[in-house]
Amino acid sequence: LNGAFVPKVDFWYEFASTYSYPAAMRIEALAAERGVALNWRPFLLGPIFASRGMMDSPFNLDAAKGRYMWSDLARICARHSLPLRRPDPFPQNSLLATRVALALDEARRPAFSRAIFRAEFGDGASIAEPATIAVILEAMGLGAAELLECAATAPVKDKLRGETKHAESLGIFGAPNLITADGEIFWGNDRLEEGLDGALAAKR
Amino acid sequence: LNGAFVPKVDFWYEFASTYSYPAAMRIEALAAERGVALNWRPFLLGPIFASRGMMDSPFNLDAAKGRYMWSDLARICARHSLPLRRPDPFPQNSLLATRVALALDEARRPAFSRAIFRAEFGDGASIAEPATIAVILEAMGLGAAELLECAATAPVKDKLRGETKHAESLGIFGAPNLITADGEIFWGNDRLEEGLDGALAAKR
Repeated sequence: LNGAFVPKVDFWYEFASTYSYPAAMRIEALAAERGVALNWRPFLLGPIFASRGMMDSPFNLDAAKGRYMWSDLARICARHSLPLRRPDPFPQNSLLATRVALALDEARRPAFSRAIFRAEFGDGASIAEPATIAVILEAMGLGAAELLECAATAPVKDKLRGETKHAESLGIFGAPNLITADGEIFWGNDRLEEGLDGALAAKR
Repeated sequence: LNGAFVPKVDFWYEFASTYSYPAAMRIEALAAERGVALNWRPFLLGPIFASRGMMDSPFNLDAAKGRYMWSDLARICARHSLPLRRPDPFPQNSLLATRVALALDEARRPAFSRAIFRAEFGDGASIAEPATIAVILEAMGLGAAELLECAATAPVKDKLRGETKHAESLGIFGAPNLITADGEIFWGNDRLEEGLDGALAAKR
């Protein structure tokens, strides 16, 4: 009741999502400029796509859309001086990385998430491999073995299922998204600035 | 060989497409600022969607995506002081309006196209109705009866089929798009500025 009110926005992202990569790399600075607090919420798009009958990435299901996305992403990454290397296969299986992100303390989630995105889309590494994730955790000074074990426990699995269900119930159909306190959705790396401005204006 | 080279960009749009509306309203000023010439190329997305197995707008096939699009479009229109009224049904049948646009002299196509978009998404009028189109043509000082008749002739029908096939062959899967002289695609109202800048940089 003493401090100033800090507007908060939920940043919903998916490790397999191409546009989540530049978004994750850009958002912290953009939020800090505006004095907006971020809640990093990784989730899985696969089950949401599947519930709409899409059994693969829309960028694989539609070849023209996929070709366009990779050229558009290359332009975005060049503009922001982000390395880009296409992971193989695409999309990567993001289940393990997402569980680990949720098993981590909230304060460590942003740095871990950026490291995953950098490995996946900057280096083209396979984030489905426990070894890739272990290297990132060890570089952060964390115990990889313990965290990978924790990520496989029922509470973490349940948490991810709950987050993904919650994302779908909010109207999420892609990634990344910013969702303000009054439920307004801003979809895509293109909408980060507008979503953060929306968080400042949102009724709480 | 005497005059300065004027970079040109193809503006591919679809009258039924929601994001083509703000794009058509904004693009002339943005192109003029940069000294880029525009080639207005209306086409039909329906056959391109159908060849991918989509028999309706993606904004109707996916309710969450549709809800998001309308709220995103409302924000865009508010920012650019454009009126917005959702036409019923959505999407509108754009076949007749597109044929008339192609029947017109190229010089009259931009003003006619903006008037169609304004009627459809600004006033919520039915652009499938010949009467809606006739009013627009008459307000432009053109003979509505003659143009509607011309729009129903084989050469105009063939021209539209050809343009739509050409759009698909270029990799178009949505609307609007800017395509530069070297074939680079910039998809969406969000990419107008970048596409026009790309036209300035394109190799010819």
